[in-house]
Amino acid sequence: MSRLTVEVEATDGAARAGRVVTPRGSFPVPCFMPVGTRGAVKALDTADLEALGAPVVLANTYHLMLRPGADVVRSLGGLHRFIGGWDGHLLTDSGGFQVFSLQPDVDDGGATFRSTYDGSRHRLTPERAVEVQADIGADIQMVLDVCPGLPAPDAVVRDAVERTSRWADRARAAFVAGSEARLDRGLDQAQFGIVQGGVDAGLRADHARRTAALGFDGYAVGGLSVGESRGDMLPALGAALEHLPVDQPRYLMGVGDPVGIVEAVALGIDLFDCVLPTRLARHGTMLTDTGRVNLRNARWARDAGPVDDTCPCPTCARWSKGYLRHLLSVGEPTAARLLTVHNLSWLLRLVERTRQAVRHGNLANLRADVLAVWG
Amino acid sequence: MSRLTVEVEATDGAARAGRVVTPRGSFPVPCFMPVGTRGAVKALDTADLEALGAPVVLANTYHLMLRPGADVVRSLGGLHRFIGGWDGHLLTDSGGFQVFSLQPDVDDGGATFRSTYDGSRHRLTPERAVEVQADIGADIQMVLDVCPGLPAPDAVVRDAVERTSRWADRARAAFVAGSEARLDRGLDQAQFGIVQGGVDAGLRADHARRTAALGFDGYAVGGLSVGESRGDMLPALGAALEHLPVDQPRYLMGVGDPVGIVEAVALGIDLFDCVLPTRLARHGTMLTDTGRVNLRNARWARDAGPVDDTCPCPTCARWSKGYLRHLLSVGEPTAARLLTVHNLSWLLRLVERTRQAVRHGNLANLRADVLAVWG
Repeated sequence: MSRLTVEVEATDGAARAGRVVTPRGSFPVPCFMPVGTRGAVKALDTADLEALGAPVVLANTYHLMLRPGADVVRSLGGLHRFIGGWDGHLLTDSGGFQVFSLQPDVDDGGATFRSTYDGSRHRLTPERAVEVQADIGADIQMVLDVCPGLPAPDAVVRDAVERTSRWADRARAAFVAGSEARLDRGLDQAQFGIVQGGVDAGLRADHARRTAALGFDGYAVGGLSVGESRGDMLPALGAALEHLPVDQPRYLMGVGDPVGIVEAVALGIDLFDCVLPTRLARHGTMLTDTGRVNLRNARWARDAGPVDDTCPCPTCARWSKGYLRHLLSVGEPTAARLLTVHNLSWLLRLVERTRQAVRHGNLANLRADVLAVWG
Repeated sequence: MSRLTVEVEATDGAARAGRVVTPRGSFPVPCFMPVGTRGAVKALDTADLEALGAPVVLANTYHLMLRPGADVVRSLGGLHRFIGGWDGHLLTDSGGFQVFSLQPDVDDGGATFRSTYDGSRHRLTPERAVEVQADIGADIQMVLDVCPGLPAPDAVVRDAVERTSRWADRARAAFVAGSEARLDRGLDQAQFGIVQGGVDAGLRADHARRTAALGFDGYAVGGLSVGESRGDMLPALGAALEHLPVDQPRYLMGVGDPVGIVEAVALGIDLFDCVLPTRLARHGTMLTDTGRVNLRNARWARDAGPVDDTCPCPTCARWSKGYLRHLLSVGEPTAARLLTVHNLSWLLRLVERTRQAVRHGNLANLRADVLAVWG
C-alpha cells in the first residue's frame, strides 16, 4: 500500500501544480486521464497514447471483469502488459458507476447485477472490487461506492453516503490485508477513497472528513457532473476539498469539459477523467481554441486548413478539415482515430496550460479566457 | 501522357522483378496496392501506409466522384494532397466495376446509375471517367470498362469485350486530347487500358492485342476473380499476357489472395489490388506464415504470443493475440486498425518475397510453399 504524495511545486490560490509520486515514478498534475474503458481508448492504441503524452490512462473494472475477465488480464501479465507494454500510469475505477446505472440488486453486502454482454449474473462487493482490481493490476484502485444520479432526494444522497462509508471501511481493510500478497507478485498498488454527498456542502465536508480518516492513498470526489448545474457542483466540490489532505492527490471523477477543468483546478483538483473529448471526437465535434467546431457542417467541405491553426497535434499537422469532414461523412473508421487524437491533444494541452498558469500565478487569466470561449 | 516502363531487373520464367518508372519516381514490382476506397484504407491513415511501406495505393473513382466529389478533391489540391501529403503513387480505378454492380442503364455512350449515397442520378462515359480521374489527380487512371460477373454466357462476354474496346478507343482519345491541359496544371498522369474476355483464352488474346494497339501507358487484366475457378482464370490470364508489351506494367485487377498472387507473378503480372487483406482483418482473420488464423476463436483468449511469430509489423511487435482477440470480441474500433496493419504488412512482405524469389530464380520454391499452406 503506497500512500501517494503530491510534490507541490507551485500554488495559485487553492490551485496547485506539481507531481504525484508513485512506486512507478511520477506524473505531473493537474492531469487529465483519457478513458480506455475496455483496455483501449476508443479508436486509439497504446502507441497513440504515448505519442499524445498522456501520463495516466483510466480503465473500467466493470467492463474488464466481464470481458475478457480480470483473471485473463492477470494471466496476460496485468493491464500494463495486456495493453501492449504501457510504461505510464493506469487507474481502474471500481465498476460501481456502471453497475449502479444497471439498477442492480443492492444490499449492504454489495451489488448483484446482470452483464450487459450476456445477461449473466455477477456480484460486486467492496472486497471483491479490491480483488478484481488487483487482478487487473493498474497502479491505482478505486473503492466501490454508491453513486446516485442528481437531482436526488436528500434521503437517497444520505443513504448513499452512509453505504459508501461502510463499504470504504471494508474496502480499505481488504486492500490493506492484501498488500503483502500483491507485493509478493510485484504489484504495488494504491487505493483511492471516494467522497459522495450530492450537492450538499455540509454532507460533502462531513464525508470528506470520514473518508480521509480511513487513510487512503489518495482521494476522489465522485457523484458530481451527474445532472446538477455547475453552480451547484462547485460549492459541493470546494466543501469536500477543504477536508482532504493537501499532500495527497485529489481526483474529480467524470469531469473533463474545459470550464469544469479550470474551475476544479482553481479549487485544488489534481486529476480528471472524462469520456467527453473522445466521444465528441467520434461525432465530429472538435475542441479548439475558439470553441467547438462541428466538422459535419458542410461549410468545411472545401476547407484546406487544419482543425485548429495553433494545434501541434499529428492530425492538425497533416490533414485538412475538408478531408476529415469527408472521412466522417462517409463513415470511414479512420475519422474516429484522427479526430480523437486532436481532441485529446487539445484537452491535454489545456490541462498543461493550467499547470503553467498555476506556476506563473495567473490561473485567473486562463480561467477568464476559458470561460469567455466555453462558458 | 507518360508511357510507364518496367525496368526489368530479373526474370524467372515469365515472372519479372524490377521497377516501374513514372514521372513521380519509381516503385518496385511485383507490387500489391492496398485499397483506399474513399481516400483512406479502412481504419488506417496515410502515416500508417508510409510506415507499412506501401508504394502505391488505389482509390475508387465511383466513391470519390459521389463523396466528396471529384471537384472537391481537385479544389483541395488533388488526391495526394487531399489524403495528407502522400508522396507515394496513387491509382484510381475507373468506377466501372462499382457502377456495373448497381445494374445501371447502359448504352453505347456510357452508363447511367444511381448514387448509393442519396439515390441521385449520375452518368459515367469513357470521356467523363477521364475527366473525373483527372480532377481526382492520381498518378494512374484506368479506362472505363464493362466487367461482367462470371460465369456469363459467351454473348455477354463478347459484348462486354466489344463495348470495352469501343470505350477504350474513346477513352484513349479523350485522355490524349487532355494531356496538355493536365500538364499545364502540373498533372502528368498515365492511363491504363483494360483487357476483358472472361475465361475464353482466345478472346483474351484477341482483346489484349486490340487494347495494346491503342498505345496505353500500361495494361490491366480485368474481369477475373469474379466467380470463376483458378483453373479457369490462369489460362485466360496467361493468354492475355502473351499479347501485352513486355516493357510496360501489367496489372491484375482485384486479385490479392496468396495463391493468386504467386500464380499471377509466375505468369508475369506486376501489380495487384484487393480488399481481401483489409476486409479479412476487420473480421479477425489473420494472414500468417502458417495460414489463416481466426482471432475470434476462444482458444486465443489467454495467448500471450503475437499473431505471427516471425512478423516484424508494429502489431506483432507489441500486442498479443489475447489482447487483439479481446478488442475484436468487444467491438473496439482499435482492433480494425491493428489487425489491418498486420494483414497488409504480411501481404506486402509476401509480394516482396516474390520479388526476391524472382531475383534468385527460385519462384517455383516460393510458389510450392505458398500452395502448401494456402492451396
